[in-house]
Amino acid sequence: MNDYATVVLAHGGGGKLTHQLIEQVFKKHFSNPDLDLMHDGAMVEIGNGRIAISTDSYVVSPIIFPGGNIGELAVNGTVNDIAMCGAQPKYLSASFIIEEGLNIGELETIVQSMALAAKKSGVSIVTGDTKVVPRGKADKLFITTAGVGTIPPGRNIHPSCIHAGDFIILSGTIADHGMAIMSVREGLEFESEISSDTIALNGMVEAMYHVSSNIHFLRDPTRGGVASTLNEIASSAKKGIRLTERSIPVNDTVRSACEILGFDPLYVANEGKLIAIVSSADVDIILSAMRKHPAGKHAAVIGTVTDDHPSIVILQTIIGGERVVDMITGEQLPRIC
Amino acid sequence: MNDYATVVLAHGGGGKLTHQLIEQVFKKHFSNPDLDLMHDGAMVEIGNGRIAISTDSYVVSPIIFPGGNIGELAVNGTVNDIAMCGAQPKYLSASFIIEEGLNIGELETIVQSMALAAKKSGVSIVTGDTKVVPRGKADKLFITTAGVGTIPPGRNIHPSCIHAGDFIILSGTIADHGMAIMSVREGLEFESEISSDTIALNGMVEAMYHVSSNIHFLRDPTRGGVASTLNEIASSAKKGIRLTERSIPVNDTVRSACEILGFDPLYVANEGKLIAIVSSADVDIILSAMRKHPAGKHAAVIGTVTDDHPSIVILQTIIGGERVVDMITGEQLPRIC
Repeated sequence: MNDYATVVLAHGGGGKLTHQLIEQVFKKHFSNPDLDLMHDGAMVEIGNGRIAISTDSYVVSPIIFPGGNIGELAVNGTVNDIAMCGAQPKYLSASFIIEEGLNIGELETIVQSMALAAKKSGVSIVTGDTKVVPRGKADKLFITTAGVGTIPPGRNIHPSCIHAGDFIILSGTIADHGMAIMSVREGLEFESEISSDTIALNGMVEAMYHVSSNIHFLRDPTRGGVASTLNEIASSAKKGIRLTERSIPVNDTVRSACEILGFDPLYVANEGKLIAIVSSADVDIILSAMRKHPAGKHAAVIGTVTDDHPSIVILQTIIGGERVVDMITGEQLPRIC
Repeated sequence: MNDYATVVLAHGGGGKLTHQLIEQVFKKHFSNPDLDLMHDGAMVEIGNGRIAISTDSYVVSPIIFPGGNIGELAVNGTVNDIAMCGAQPKYLSASFIIEEGLNIGELETIVQSMALAAKKSGVSIVTGDTKVVPRGKADKLFITTAGVGTIPPGRNIHPSCIHAGDFIILSGTIADHGMAIMSVREGLEFESEISSDTIALNGMVEAMYHVSSNIHFLRDPTRGGVASTLNEIASSAKKGIRLTERSIPVNDTVRSACEILGFDPLYVANEGKLIAIVSSADVDIILSAMRKHPAGKHAAVIGTVTDDHPSIVILQTIIGGERVVDMITGEQLPRIC
């Protein structure tokens, strides 16, 4: 942080600078065991049970994009963060910061699709807030959702549950959301349109728990992509991760778009994908449960956990070499979510 | 809404236009019994108990002001919204939308005072999010907090609990927060500085419940002030409210500032005050419990509930006349919280 007296865009990129800002400003003052876990949501006790709490602010630009809009993203994103705690999402709050001049019809379209997304994922939006700021003091619309879900007994998502020999499952193709946003911004057209993959994952998570209780870790690889998420996991679990490039599903059009624009799909944001770390014994039944679900049709094992090279993610490339996959450093795609 | 194709500042003022926007866009699509109650927070079942969930986005300008800053406001505001449900606040989430270029020292000052405010009110900040947007796409810093609290059995805050003959207690002087912000913006100096009244009210609420279970309703009169809040209460309870102007505490400097700037203190925002509607039998013990608390030193009975003139708030003025106190119409003070 010594290098930065002011916040730069890369502090919001989900990579190294985001982590520095969190460590040196937020964790420094807010530090507590629940927060320090730095998972997608906090898992805390309430009454006789455990709940998960999560929040995200959405600042994506444009606010409406192929495959979704900021409202859908805000509902699905928080639903997913709750689900990644092994929890069943129940209630959401939604807070709107609106720039003066926003078209009310456009706002209503977004609100309507939030209502639909909430219905699809089985959550209720129970409370909210609306603020309006003068023209030029925001960019159309920012939405912050927070969510609460219940964690059924016996479910435990924690870095300490990750063991050498565990398998790493990815629920589908990567980089769709990021490249959908990027194509619109760059005005690129491809043979088939690239759509955001935004979708609620809680139904699929329930299907996975239905067949196995040996799910050791869950995360959705959003900002910073699969590479940054796996680095976070490796580092918090103090385990090594080995990936096989060949097994990582990427849609052909998305791959082309990444090549044209010079992006590595491993670092591009997803909004409807999850990474599950599961015991080797149950990997087949979990995988088959996921593949039956619309959100998991292309689920695949993409790697394994190892005691070698702790905190480091290594990719076995298609041509047979090996390379270290590091956390994203700068800001690849500002305002992707 | 027919008059507005786009969002105007007054849609965020906490008055009539805010209500129109909520009715015609948000409630239209999100409608459910918990949300429709339109209280400061939602009161919902989870596991074997009841919890309160609340959220607010803070966009106040300037972000640091006499008596507090945006971070303290964000913690205390959500703690208070939870407390206004009769709940005991436990966990907060905090989500930051930062404009590129924000001074990291300034951010740290704000984060530090959030940590202190959380500690003072006994809540943990357990999860959060950080987004950065390019220069000119936000205004320094917006913070959205959401909170969860538990509602002890036997507590029930609901418009249907309000009865004719109930007393209306206000916990202290009005208009401090709004005039603190306004004085800074206008560069006004008074003999004694006007400070924001931001403070957590959950401790005082517990002290009130400790002496009485006949607390029928609680609300903190923030945006739109005491007048707008009482109008909302009168309208949702379908009861009349009679206020005596003489009994409403206003700090002298604040009153002067209101006169100079042409504001009616009844419509100016508060951040550390509550309105309690309680049974007449318990009003004295509740009032005395409040006055022992730092946040309630100037607590006073300001009026009563009546079956006459349902949904209407009437003020008996100091000079002996009567006037209807309506909900705020336009936008009195943009970005007050």
